[in-house]
Amino acid sequence: MDTISKAIMSRIFIYDTTLRDGTQGEEISLSCDDKLTLARRLDEFGVHYIEGGWPGSNPKDAEFFTRVRSLGLRQAKVAAFGSTRRKHGRCEDDANLQALLDAETPVVTLVAKSWDYHVDAVLDTTREENLAMVRDSVAYMKARGREVFLDAEHFFDGYKANPAYALAVLLAAEEAGADALVLCETNGGALPWEVESVVAEVRARTRVPLGIHVHNDSGCAVANTLAAVRAGCTQVQGTLNGYGERVGNANLTTIIPNLQLKMGLQVVSAEQLRGLTTLSRFAAELANLKHDSHAPYVGASAFAHKGGIHVAAVLKAVDTYQHIDPERVGNETRAVVSELSGRGNLVYQARSRGLEINREDAQRVLHQIKRLEHEGFTFEAAEASVDLMLYRVSRDYTPPFELVDFMVLTEQRHGRGLLSEATVKVRIEGALKLTAAEGNGPVDALAHALSKALCDVYPELATVRLTDYKVRILDSDKGTAATTRVLIDFHDGERGWTTVGASPNIIEASWRALSDSMEFALLTRTGANRPAPVSEAG
Amino acid sequence: MDTISKAIMSRIFIYDTTLRDGTQGEEISLSCDDKLTLARRLDEFGVHYIEGGWPGSNPKDAEFFTRVRSLGLRQAKVAAFGSTRRKHGRCEDDANLQALLDAETPVVTLVAKSWDYHVDAVLDTTREENLAMVRDSVAYMKARGREVFLDAEHFFDGYKANPAYALAVLLAAEEAGADALVLCETNGGALPWEVESVVAEVRARTRVPLGIHVHNDSGCAVANTLAAVRAGCTQVQGTLNGYGERVGNANLTTIIPNLQLKMGLQVVSAEQLRGLTTLSRFAAELANLKHDSHAPYVGASAFAHKGGIHVAAVLKAVDTYQHIDPERVGNETRAVVSELSGRGNLVYQARSRGLEINREDAQRVLHQIKRLEHEGFTFEAAEASVDLMLYRVSRDYTPPFELVDFMVLTEQRHGRGLLSEATVKVRIEGALKLTAAEGNGPVDALAHALSKALCDVYPELATVRLTDYKVRILDSDKGTAATTRVLIDFHDGERGWTTVGASPNIIEASWRALSDSMEFALLTRTGANRPAPVSEAG
Repeated sequence: MDTISKAIMSRIFIYDTTLRDGTQGEEISLSCDDKLTLARRLDEFGVHYIEGGWPGSNPKDAEFFTRVRSLGLRQAKVAAFGSTRRKHGRCEDDANLQALLDAETPVVTLVAKSWDYHVDAVLDTTREENLAMVRDSVAYMKARGREVFLDAEHFFDGYKANPAYALAVLLAAEEAGADALVLCETNGGALPWEVESVVAEVRARTRVPLGIHVHNDSGCAVANTLAAVRAGCTQVQGTLNGYGERVGNANLTTIIPNLQLKMGLQVVSAEQLRGLTTLSRFAAELANLKHDSHAPYVGASAFAHKGGIHVAAVLKAVDTYQHIDPERVGNETRAVVSELSGRGNLVYQARSRGLEINREDAQRVLHQIKRLEHEGFTFEAAEASVDLMLYRVSRDYTPPFELVDFMVLTEQRHGRGLLSEATVKVRIEGALKLTAAEGNGPVDALAHALSKALCDVYPELATVRLTDYKVRILDSDKGTAATTRVLIDFHDGERGWTTVGASPNIIEASWRALSDSMEFALLTRTGANRPAPVSEAG
Repeated sequence: MDTISKAIMSRIFIYDTTLRDGTQGEEISLSCDDKLTLARRLDEFGVHYIEGGWPGSNPKDAEFFTRVRSLGLRQAKVAAFGSTRRKHGRCEDDANLQALLDAETPVVTLVAKSWDYHVDAVLDTTREENLAMVRDSVAYMKARGREVFLDAEHFFDGYKANPAYALAVLLAAEEAGADALVLCETNGGALPWEVESVVAEVRARTRVPLGIHVHNDSGCAVANTLAAVRAGCTQVQGTLNGYGERVGNANLTTIIPNLQLKMGLQVVSAEQLRGLTTLSRFAAELANLKHDSHAPYVGASAFAHKGGIHVAAVLKAVDTYQHIDPERVGNETRAVVSELSGRGNLVYQARSRGLEINREDAQRVLHQIKRLEHEGFTFEAAEASVDLMLYRVSRDYTPPFELVDFMVLTEQRHGRGLLSEATVKVRIEGALKLTAAEGNGPVDALAHALSKALCDVYPELATVRLTDYKVRILDSDKGTAATTRVLIDFHDGERGWTTVGASPNIIEASWRALSDSMEFALLTRTGANRPAPVSEAG
């Protein structure tokens, strides 16, 4: 690396395209409100550019560009994305370029073909005309005061096939005044050393800043981006959680901490970086997708230790099995409790809850976990259920309520519509309570009936609400004799927790998770009479 | 790269540790039967080594090693994993080494500390004693006829901290007769150029073959493995789907096609490579985990195109947006149908089903999809539901049955246990049928009652069974008014399909998916009277 690119490297600009390329991902769909909310969060986090969409392509994107102007972003510049003018047309008459202008963004990103094969096979025009399209479109936008980036689509494949032509496309944009040339690895199949050597060659032949935009089809998007930065790219394009077409775009959630914590480059402030985990999980929530628990840096499992020897070592020295301090990205160390785990994991979890349990009790809870996991329960995602077992193992534990009966009915009758009704009978402090409630569905009806029965005695439960409900059929090859596992998430306005239930009957599995959640809420509420802790010495 | 490492590179050995390190992943649990089944599949696929477990650590692993001997594996050698002897002990008295011998595997993999910090902080012994532990244990296993690999734990961190000591550990093993030295990037935080330069230095100072074992904490496990191979490693360790502790191990499902299709190395046969997608999905199924649809090469979305311009280009020339031909890894090109997609995607899906639809009908189905997605449906994973719409849009379409009423009851009474019962009323060819059935749960009871009503008239439905059932609460911030989305998978012994239903009531959502699945089964069964195709010309 020469000294010039080292000097440039000291400042990296993050260009987020979650709102545009990210929404091309299968299963991803964001409303205009979602996009505005995410834009605000990206700005707070400290990204430098936010690509909001393709204004000409659909009404949702056009609405976004109008509303984003009054959002009051602090740092991030908004970019509108679109293609260069149509072949043999004039910029003034080009609907796409006009839509880009109407978006009134400080930044315009123009995508252009840089692989001769695509010019021939997809664009169906001459190579000279494609260069003219680039030149005219960049100059047109520059003349109208925009900061202009050129996204050179399929650049690496194009460079491999015809380096002179690929470079000619970049130089046409540079000559027309482009502010940055973004090398796109569109098909995502390149390997890091290929990316590094092509970027180095381009760096030597161009003057304006270079950007990198890669996809993850070879599983190397993160490494390819880092390799490009090493070779001189200063603008890094990608998406939160790697959302995007096919296998996804370069994952900024991994790239940013790699750049900042591993490569020593300044990207965002240390304080902003601590917001990374929250931002990543928020984006998943907004996209209505399960957050990838195995995501580097930000996943729930990223610093979770399951192997007995790992946990034992982490209890001795936390950095023995962790590549960074998870707090730097806002994540945390966890010990996973499962049938494979040792007593150490359980003791770790108990301690982090302020409970002390003795060895015999830890062993007893571990046996119970193994037996229930055999029935189909899973405790790795349901820490509240494990906490309950830790409470219940105490000799003087008295449950706050006991279940007696329940019944739930759902029917749809021609002309009368749909109804769900439940009755619940519980015993609280010796007295029986029988309640009935309706609901949007059977589990909702049950939850209402149970809450009605308990809230009379424990009014603090009124703030508890169900926030997510997940069902999984286990041993599906057993057909209808299969076990149903239900995970229910609750929130009381301040904190969230998850409980698990399993049964061949979905209603019973739900019922077990529901009632455990209420019991957990009662035990851990502020000022609750927790059972007296039993000391380690027993 | 020198000529020696180039020569070595021509032959790569895959060492799969899904059954050992993979099961350290959170959410992963495999029974002994599962492990044996997977071992057979790995052998058929062509991996060279299968690490079965840690014989001393739990009874499940011990059972595996006994039973795997009679499995008749064709090519793969089974490896048992364990640590070097305890400090200041004798190999003859070491329970762990004895368990390794009792496993009776051709290969033994010994894990040793190579980071001085771990020797001090975790092992709590002298550095010289650690070298003796390595030397003694390797020699002991070699004297008993085993092929011995040394897993040098935390090698890269160790080499950074104290290169002389890390190298001394390797040389102790080499001198004692180890057959390969495996460099482990245990904490997973390294970057590719660091890995490449360390491997190159080690390659220059050692003689026996080198292996690479990395974790994915920096999101670079695939690239780190490829970099190590470039620098001279010939044994590649990893797991299927990247399963493993924290964020996971190096993903063999990505690495193998990269080595073979991108780097030109011979790993498995072309025929075996076409089994990659099936193997990857099978492993997920076995582990009871959702297969990652965005996984490189093998994911359901890996070659799925959603963006309108991508689909249009792929319809013109399939290699314009794909880095490889998906058939080489047993995957396929798909066009995703969603509110963002154009008519082209729908026409592509219709064609791949042997249906031709005209432009107006395609537009009508697209409008319907947009409306239903707004209600909470999702069609990207439920292609059967889209197929049904394509059928229904035909003017002369008559549904094989119509729903009238249903009722479902679940109750739990003290001393009487649990029951679920359903009644269903349908109209088939003008006649009403009312049936009742019990089930393990409400959806099962409904499915039985519906199947009973239909099987009288359509006995071929008897083979259809429910294989998976997934529930998702949408807009969870709306609390109990939230929409429930249900995806149901069915299989009839020959093929599988998925339908979707959405409603605030889980039973109604399930009912819609259930009845659509039955309709789909009837429409697409062999010899069914499909509606006459409408030509593109209209």
